[in-house]
Amino acid sequence: MKKSFASDNYSGVHPSIMRSLTEANSGHQSPYGGDEYTTKAKKKFNEIFGPVETLFIYNGTASNVVALDIMKEIGSSIICPETAHIFTDETGSTAKLTGMQMLTVPSTDGKLDIEEAKKYLLFKDNFHKPNPTIVSISQATENGTIYTLDEIQKIAAFAKENKMYLHMDGARISNAAVALGCSLEEITRGCGVDILSFGGTKNGIMFGEALVIFNENLKSRIKEFEYLRKQNLQLHSKMRYIAAQYITLFEENIWYENAKTGNEMAKYLEGELLKINIPITNEVKGNTLFAILPKSIIEPLQEFCYFYVWNPNTSEVRFVMSFDILKEDIDLFIEKIKELTTK
Amino acid sequence: MKKSFASDNYSGVHPSIMRSLTEANSGHQSPYGGDEYTTKAKKKFNEIFGPVETLFIYNGTASNVVALDIMKEIGSSIICPETAHIFTDETGSTAKLTGMQMLTVPSTDGKLDIEEAKKYLLFKDNFHKPNPTIVSISQATENGTIYTLDEIQKIAAFAKENKMYLHMDGARISNAAVALGCSLEEITRGCGVDILSFGGTKNGIMFGEALVIFNENLKSRIKEFEYLRKQNLQLHSKMRYIAAQYITLFEENIWYENAKTGNEMAKYLEGELLKINIPITNEVKGNTLFAILPKSIIEPLQEFCYFYVWNPNTSEVRFVMSFDILKEDIDLFIEKIKELTTK
Amino acid sequence: MKKSFASDNYSGVHPSIMRSLTEANSGHQSPYGGDEYTTKAKKKFNEIFGPVETLFIYNGTASNVVALDIMKEIGSSIICPETAHIFTDETGSTAKLTGMQMLTVPSTDGKLDIEEAKKYLLFKDNFHKPNPTIVSISQATENGTIYTLDEIQKIAAFAKENKMYLHMDGARISNAAVALGCSLEEITRGCGVDILSFGGTKNGIMFGEALVIFNENLKSRIKEFEYLRKQNLQLHSKMRYIAAQYITLFEENIWYENAKTGNEMAKYLEGELLKINIPITNEVKGNTLFAILPKSIIEPLQEFCYFYVWNPNTSEVRFVMSFDILKEDIDLFIEKIKELTTK
Amino acid sequence: MKKSFASDNYSGVHPSIMRSLTEANSGHQSPYGGDEYTTKAKKKFNEIFGPVETLFIYNGTASNVVALDIMKEIGSSIICPETAHIFTDETGSTAKLTGMQMLTVPSTDGKLDIEEAKKYLLFKDNFHKPNPTIVSISQATENGTIYTLDEIQKIAAFAKENKMYLHMDGARISNAAVALGCSLEEITRGCGVDILSFGGTKNGIMFGEALVIFNENLKSRIKEFEYLRKQNLQLHSKMRYIAAQYITLFEENIWYENAKTGNEMAKYLEGELLKINIPITNEVKGNTLFAILPKSIIEPLQEFCYFYVWNPNTSEVRFVMSFDILKEDIDLFIEKIKELTTK
Repeated sequence: MKKSFASDNYSGVHPSIMRSLTEANSGHQSPYGGDEYTTKAKKKFNEIFGPVETLFIYNGTASNVVALDIMKEIGSSIICPETAHIFTDETGSTAKLTGMQMLTVPSTDGKLDIEEAKKYLLFKDNFHKPNPTIVSISQATENGTIYTLDEIQKIAAFAKENKMYLHMDGARISNAAVALGCSLEEITRGCGVDILSFGGTKNGIMFGEALVIFNENLKSRIKEFEYLRKQNLQLHSKMRYIAAQYITLFEENIWYENAKTGNEMAKYLEGELLKINIPITNEVKGNTLFAILPKSIIEPLQEFCYFYVWNPNTSEVRFVMSFDILKEDIDLFIEKIKELTTK
Repeated sequence: MKKSFASDNYSGVHPSIMRSLTEANSGHQSPYGGDEYTTKAKKKFNEIFGPVETLFIYNGTASNVVALDIMKEIGSSIICPETAHIFTDETGSTAKLTGMQMLTVPSTDGKLDIEEAKKYLLFKDNFHKPNPTIVSISQATENGTIYTLDEIQKIAAFAKENKMYLHMDGARISNAAVALGCSLEEITRGCGVDILSFGGTKNGIMFGEALVIFNENLKSRIKEFEYLRKQNLQLHSKMRYIAAQYITLFEENIWYENAKTGNEMAKYLEGELLKINIPITNEVKGNTLFAILPKSIIEPLQEFCYFYVWNPNTSEVRFVMSFDILKEDIDLFIEKIKELTTK
Repeated sequence: MKKSFASDNYSGVHPSIMRSLTEANSGHQSPYGGDEYTTKAKKKFNEIFGPVETLFIYNGTASNVVALDIMKEIGSSIICPETAHIFTDETGSTAKLTGMQMLTVPSTDGKLDIEEAKKYLLFKDNFHKPNPTIVSISQATENGTIYTLDEIQKIAAFAKENKMYLHMDGARISNAAVALGCSLEEITRGCGVDILSFGGTKNGIMFGEALVIFNENLKSRIKEFEYLRKQNLQLHSKMRYIAAQYITLFEENIWYENAKTGNEMAKYLEGELLKINIPITNEVKGNTLFAILPKSIIEPLQEFCYFYVWNPNTSEVRFVMSFDILKEDIDLFIEKIKELTTK
Repeated sequence: MKKSFASDNYSGVHPSIMRSLTEANSGHQSPYGGDEYTTKAKKKFNEIFGPVETLFIYNGTASNVVALDIMKEIGSSIICPETAHIFTDETGSTAKLTGMQMLTVPSTDGKLDIEEAKKYLLFKDNFHKPNPTIVSISQATENGTIYTLDEIQKIAAFAKENKMYLHMDGARISNAAVALGCSLEEITRGCGVDILSFGGTKNGIMFGEALVIFNENLKSRIKEFEYLRKQNLQLHSKMRYIAAQYITLFEENIWYENAKTGNEMAKYLEGELLKINIPITNEVKGNTLFAILPKSIIEPLQEFCYFYVWNPNTSEVRFVMSFDILKEDIDLFIEKIKELTTK
């Protein structure tokens, strides 16, 4: 299959990550995280994020759901933007598995508007109401935007003041960190995030995401969360193969390089699209770009290189740059657009 | 305690309903609905609503949750206005007990805006999305407004076209029927409602609500729903005492008289408030009225006769007229407002 | 309908309880437990049981499920006899609403065998296993037997030693207390019970059961459990009508008198059955009695006075004596058996 | 780490499987199962099992839970032996995620005793009871035994007669098939199994199990189950990497070779243990063997080569032979036992 701009899970596994899997494939190891690789990988997370607890999880949806389940208290509900992946693209898993209701806040750019969110504070301290005790944001957002450090800090302050935990869906957090020129720790712990769903799959690994817990109270309850991980069907037996990937991802700086490539390619694509007068509808900082295409060229262009139509009514489309996209791929794509538009 | 304008569950039980309980208290009866009273009460529901299946349930929240659980399919989500009681005032029961996610639509008057709701149709036929298969509306709404027959029919048509069930939260459906001058059947089955949570408690009974199923497919599965009722903790053993109340409610037309009184008293209160220049913020047709009071008088007035502040920021308050409110109660209330405002 | 020996929910409401409902039906009261009656009823529970927290609940199944939900921790499972009502007769509500697994212990007399239960201790401290943190017993048991104080104390000690809560399903606790000649407090708090589902419906009230919390840690979390009660569909709005019944139940000693009558009638029935050589299969102390009837007379006898067949293979049947059973009812029943057996 | 006899998830990935992963790592592929590998892998399952629907799932617990969730109806409960992995070793996932109760049947050899199971038929057609609509068995069992074809057929007949689905937990189904000298289809579809959780991880792959649906009614609902898989956190985005492993597993007959090795090594170990008078407590046919060791040698022997103590009271231990165990490993192990016992 040709390369696609549809999502960063169309690409395969970075060669170094694949090598790490092959190298880990030797002899016996204790299952369920009792192996040497998991011990080492957890250390890596402590080097990257400071003193944290880390739980390996199968996929991104699971990483979000288990994070939310970890923070759940009796009567809890979750404040999030209406654009949140947990609300729009996880088949209602959060409701099914945690029994929590979501309180959505209108959003056009994927970010949480604190002023709008405040209406839900009226739901606190009243046993008739779903009690908002969790705020969930995505970094980068589903709309391709990226919160500044200041913006996250303000949301964290809002959460703390109102006794709510702050969860970050970091399916594309590496792209955000690179775009902001910050460390992974700065945009999470440094801003007051309590728990992070760290995304590896979209950044070049094969399978396995990581739940990273910063909050001290939650960290102290890590033994309970091992039950919760297993209950939520997320305990891999041959854990070494998830852990080995993360060791390499961090040791060889692949998380950074892959995100950088994706971001740069999105920037390059933006420039090339603007040259041919295709309007861009988001501020391009990460690896995701939204544009308005002429309706007539969408289908033939998708056949050439697949991408998603974001809004069929406005012909807004989404392009996501995987770590393996090259300038040449983009150049060919632009040529194709030109060809289609001049027909 | 003095009468209150806070809600129609501050009042007690209508004397005729109380009498029906006393009269039912004789000898043994089969439990769990196997009694003579339940048989008769179900017949009454068939007289009132046409050929339906009826399940007695303890309270209003339960009646909504069991209704939604009955309609639930794999992956289902629920479209409702953001003002819906199921979203704002049921402690997230629907998520906890049915595992379904709610998809809220902005609303200022409590009604569902079909055009706004259409955005969620993009969630259909895509296994990543919570699949909207249920639409839930309240009649009368939580904002004191009442859907016209035409409005309900349009929502029902929208639901049917898109293979969604239509649920009606009828905690105050009697007030709506009286206000519209329609029969209970006309504003439910007649408009295409699939399942109704019929409210008795706010209309003068002691306990027990009724789930009324119109949809033929759902009706054919009634045996399954008896399991669901019990699982959801709603099976009363001494069922005769719920059934007896409903027999009397319908036989003696109490549902109508109580609703009529509540509606008339709300209309009377509206007139009296307008005379003293208190602005009314909803169109008063049922037994619920919203008004803007001077901030300074709210607390002393609540001490005189309790009511809820709906929006602390705008000093909007809510008055609900129980079946036992008299003109004199309102006159005294108006006097109190005058006294407090002239201080 | 004629009186039945099938269950103590075939009978109606004790006249004094009915009177209490009529008397409570005057004027307005705050809903959801904010009323004077609820305040007074809670005081009564403190008089009867010592310093407890009390939550009113609709029915017995709900009272058990909410009790279990209150004690639930991450990964919790429940140890109970295989005869437990929560396992056999609640349609799996506990699994559906709390998500907990039950670990059943073989039992022929309805009591929990501690030695057998110990096998589940191997499930502790291992995140692969459903973690037993709750023990649930019924007093009186579903088999009509009654734990001695010593037996409950031993189970409580077993629970405490292994960091498990002890729940008592007290659907017929009044019968047990009367049979043991103990106070309600002695057989609960006095024996180390953490939480009690107190049964009123089978003891002569119309609706409403009571969750009684003894455990200090749980008591301190009562605010959370108000959320849990509402979420589990158990919050009655016109709470005064549940509370008023309990005030009378305790003030006028009806709980005792009704239980005493039921127990005495069971004893009388036992004697009469033995006289005509019908074997009794449990030790009759409460209001429940099991007997082996000739297969051929079961159906005609049920037509005369209904009762349940407990085991169709052995022709074991169950008789439960409601508070309103008279000696004459039993005498006629015995006559009928004689008539049927001599045919 | 040295090789272990603790479980077949201590071993790594078979070299051919690892090669298949490397080979699949080229270019872009549609995610979520829309790729060429998944199409091909599904075809393989049809070749092996006949006309089936196949869903890839992350791990064994998940494969069981999703299978059960697929079969779930309103009020359903599950009959299984008390030794079942779903009951003892999945942290109560089934209750948490599906809300179903398990009805356990006593078992000493891991097999379901139909006569004992029949007691739960009394729970059918009664809305107070958890309704048994599913039977779940493990092949091979957790006790190392293997059902004969005749035994499975009888259980399937029992299930069908009583309108129950038959689920097979096939974590070690390859070992069972090899031991019986049957095809995979013969011991599943051929015996009347409705749905199979096919285990790959314990048979030499890295991650990913397969749900195999035989039942025609369930097969027709496969679109619904795609929602259920995602909701239960089991949808892998880069699905090709699960699919590629299964293509190789079947194409290169690795499933068979690995199982054969494991079984043979267990047989060899059995022989060697018997020679030194260590009692074997199960009939060894698959790759799992139970033995009674002298208590004093257990700990030092575990240090030499790790294994699980199955029952600390009886010193019964479990040995599981991975696909990569060699005769030499066993010989050294036997030497060690001799050394420890002659001390």
